[in-house]
Amino acid sequence: MTSVINVNLPELSYEIAISPSSLDQLGQQMASLKLGKKVLLVSNPTIFKHFGERAITSLRDATRTLSSANASLTSAGFEVASCTLPPGERYKTLNSIQKLYDIALENRLERSSTMVALGGGVIGDMTGFAAATWLRGINVIQVPTTLLAMVDSAIGGKTGVNHPHGKNLIGAFHQPRLVLIDPEVLKTLPMREFRAGMAEVIKYGVIWDAELFAQLEASKRLDQLRYVKPELIQAILVRSCQAKADVVSKDEKEGGLRAILNYGHTIGHAVESLTGYRLVNHGEAVAIGMVAAGQIAVELGMWQKEDTERQNALIQKAGLPTQLPTGVDIEAIIDALQLDKKVKAGKVRFVLPTEIGVVTVTDEVPSDIIRQVLRGM
Amino acid sequence: MTSVINVNLPELSYEIAISPSSLDQLGQQMASLKLGKKVLLVSNPTIFKHFGERAITSLRDATRTLSSANASLTSAGFEVASCTLPPGERYKTLNSIQKLYDIALENRLERSSTMVALGGGVIGDMTGFAAATWLRGINVIQVPTTLLAMVDSAIGGKTGVNHPHGKNLIGAFHQPRLVLIDPEVLKTLPMREFRAGMAEVIKYGVIWDAELFAQLEASKRLDQLRYVKPELIQAILVRSCQAKADVVSKDEKEGGLRAILNYGHTIGHAVESLTGYRLVNHGEAVAIGMVAAGQIAVELGMWQKEDTERQNALIQKAGLPTQLPTGVDIEAIIDALQLDKKVKAGKVRFVLPTEIGVVTVTDEVPSDIIRQVLRGM
Ligand SMILES: NC(=O)c1ccc[n+]([C@@H]2O[C@H](COP(=O)([O-])OP(=O)(O)OC[C@H]3O[C@@H](n4cnc5c(N)ncnc54)[C@H](O)[C@@H]3O)[C@@H](O)[C@H]2O)c1
Ligand SMILES: NC(=O)c1ccc[n+]([C@@H]2O[C@H](COP(=O)([O-])OP(=O)(O)OC[C@H]3O[C@@H](n4cnc5c(N)ncnc54)[C@H](O)[C@@H]3O)[C@@H](O)[C@H]2O)c1
Ligand SMILES: [Zn+2]
Ligand SMILES: [Zn+2]
Repeated sequence: MTSVINVNLPELSYEIAISPSSLDQLGQQMASLKLGKKVLLVSNPTIFKHFGERAITSLRDATRTLSSANASLTSAGFEVASCTLPPGERYKTLNSIQKLYDIALENRLERSSTMVALGGGVIGDMTGFAAATWLRGINVIQVPTTLLAMVDSAIGGKTGVNHPHGKNLIGAFHQPRLVLIDPEVLKTLPMREFRAGMAEVIKYGVIWDAELFAQLEASKRLDQLRYVKPELIQAILVRSCQAKADVVSKDEKEGGLRAILNYGHTIGHAVESLTGYRLVNHGEAVAIGMVAAGQIAVELGMWQKEDTERQNALIQKAGLPTQLPTGVDIEAIIDALQLDKKVKAGKVRFVLPTEIGVVTVTDEVPSDIIRQVLRGM
Repeated sequence: MTSVINVNLPELSYEIAISPSSLDQLGQQMASLKLGKKVLLVSNPTIFKHFGERAITSLRDATRTLSSANASLTSAGFEVASCTLPPGERYKTLNSIQKLYDIALENRLERSSTMVALGGGVIGDMTGFAAATWLRGINVIQVPTTLLAMVDSAIGGKTGVNHPHGKNLIGAFHQPRLVLIDPEVLKTLPMREFRAGMAEVIKYGVIWDAELFAQLEASKRLDQLRYVKPELIQAILVRSCQAKADVVSKDEKEGGLRAILNYGHTIGHAVESLTGYRLVNHGEAVAIGMVAAGQIAVELGMWQKEDTERQNALIQKAGLPTQLPTGVDIEAIIDALQLDKKVKAGKVRFVLPTEIGVVTVTDEVPSDIIRQVLRGM
């Protein structure tokens, strides 16, 4: 069960390789990319404990094609250094990046060297940004270990860190040379993180891939990894990555189409920030945001009521919330929407479904409709 | 006397506009670029005192074409905030960038906003890097105020800062939307800085443009701005910028050709670092490096002795050194060459002239030749 998705970009194309147990193939997969000898593996202590040694062994044992003119020469495996950064969103800072720079210097990483991000979106975003800016850009490989990172953050080249006053304000676009996905690493992922990733999977079903949506509907459960058949996990990963790759290839730097990836995120971000990023996590907030956006589309006569209900049933099956958390003030949400960085000239931009697998973008949603929909949740 | 050079790159092309008094046209020049309303002007206290108000007035008074679909709409000038960073290479750090981020946040810069770098290479590199990484990339305009920045650092999109243990280790490629050069701002530039820039000008003559070389030869003096005719200054700027633009357009991200810009820099960097970046400045070190490289080429039978002498005469006419500073140990230079970041597999890469206006790149220079040439200086 190995699937490969190609991300085709004007300057550089790369593969997303999805295959169980492929963590042990990391070194071999990288061997053909003509990378330099030095690799810095970046992770956090929990993830490193689970998978660090396997990744390092694979890198050290790889037979590498030399990056010289004489491409038939091969040499022994990569020279690997590794480091861990403290876990959690609040360490996604320029400070952590500075640590990575120090380690890059200590290990004398060169232009041909590679950073490997082994972790969720936090490690992926930071490692990507450090790689984007060390020596004006060295190679990065993404080895995502959360469902969210597999289907979303590892693909597309957005990298960055938070500013004390705002999320992801500092960053760069820097595409990975390879994304290697081993679904089996999800076995150790906490249930709530699995569900959060599932929110993005459902999103792809609604905005891009009706067939994925149907496959999710056909599964009895979606709330825990162990209840989902390995074949479906593989299909979920392949179709979600394909959706993200399609959108990103058509719009590498957020000119237009990429906006549709924000389905459920407009109200989602407001809910996340109003609950202090703790009570409700990102995936849960996106779930709530999709329920709201779906209903707004229905109110505007753009989407069928039955389709919203099908969407909401999937969300529930994934163990995700469909209602506003108690205590969140509706007027506070309306106000927060105005602060969103995508707001242009005071108009809030919504991504709204028109049928399953198809969305449209509009900034013509009256506040009263938003208010009414939120009151009904 | 207005000259415009086009830098053509696959993703984005931009103009280098060279014209006396054009600082007062900054706003108007930017007006047609469809930039957002907000501008952050970045400078240092000395430069700001000389030129800050003129730049700001020009920005505020500009009649701007709106970046909307309806391009015929115009609006009042830019909304300008400004800030200064402490002067000098030792403030070219991530710390200064963090200050720029804070100011960007305070002023709520958006994706369509613009940072304007008013200064030498230090301000240009930092402003460029902050612009490259704020919101994953906003617009930057370069308004260089040193000769070096005009003919070199403002063009080509290299941006970045120093790591405590190495120069320019942190950075990104980020092309400006416009480079605006007003030769008259050079009037306040200290003489030693003028000469340092002249070293790079002579470099372009040797590596790329025999006609520029001839024009430099025809001038009586090159050591101070006031002794060089305004027409020659204009020609120097136009031909040097054209040379850099040519090389950069053919090799945006340092695949190959860009290497020739390092003529004189191999030994130059070693001399700079061995003298602690104080005794000898960058331009002086490059001058010494060109003398050495020229002589190496002669020793290897690649270049004619008369041409080296013509080169060295220009260097002297520009008030630049042609000899090693006393006290610099030749073996220390040989050792330092090995540490250069461009060294591959222990081989030092040299750019060597074969005729005036033409160079070649080689990593086959025996250490003994280097030693012998340095001893002779
Ligand atoms: N770059 C992008 O395009 C993009 C897109 C979406 C989100 N993001 C970013 O991604 C981040 C969120 O990523 P995330 O949801 O992966 O969170 P995360 O990286 O914080 O990981 C969640 C938790 O799971 C743990 N973990 C990860 N993999 C594990 C495994 N296999 N077994 C056991 N524990 C494991 C981590 O230690 C962490 O505590 C945010 O910072 C967000 O801004 C980026
Ligand atoms: N990005 C690139 O491609 C590139 C290329 C070459 C050099 N650089 C970088 O450029 C930097 C050196 O730039 P620089 O030589 O312009 O030095 P600089 O920016 O430090 O300026 C030199 C001095 O001149 C002063 N000054 C500048 N303009 C003036 C004016 N018009 N009147 C009076 N004083 C003025 C400055 O305050 C400063 O003290 C280095 O950091 C180097 O790494 C970058
Ligand atoms: Zn999301
Ligand atoms: Zn130089």
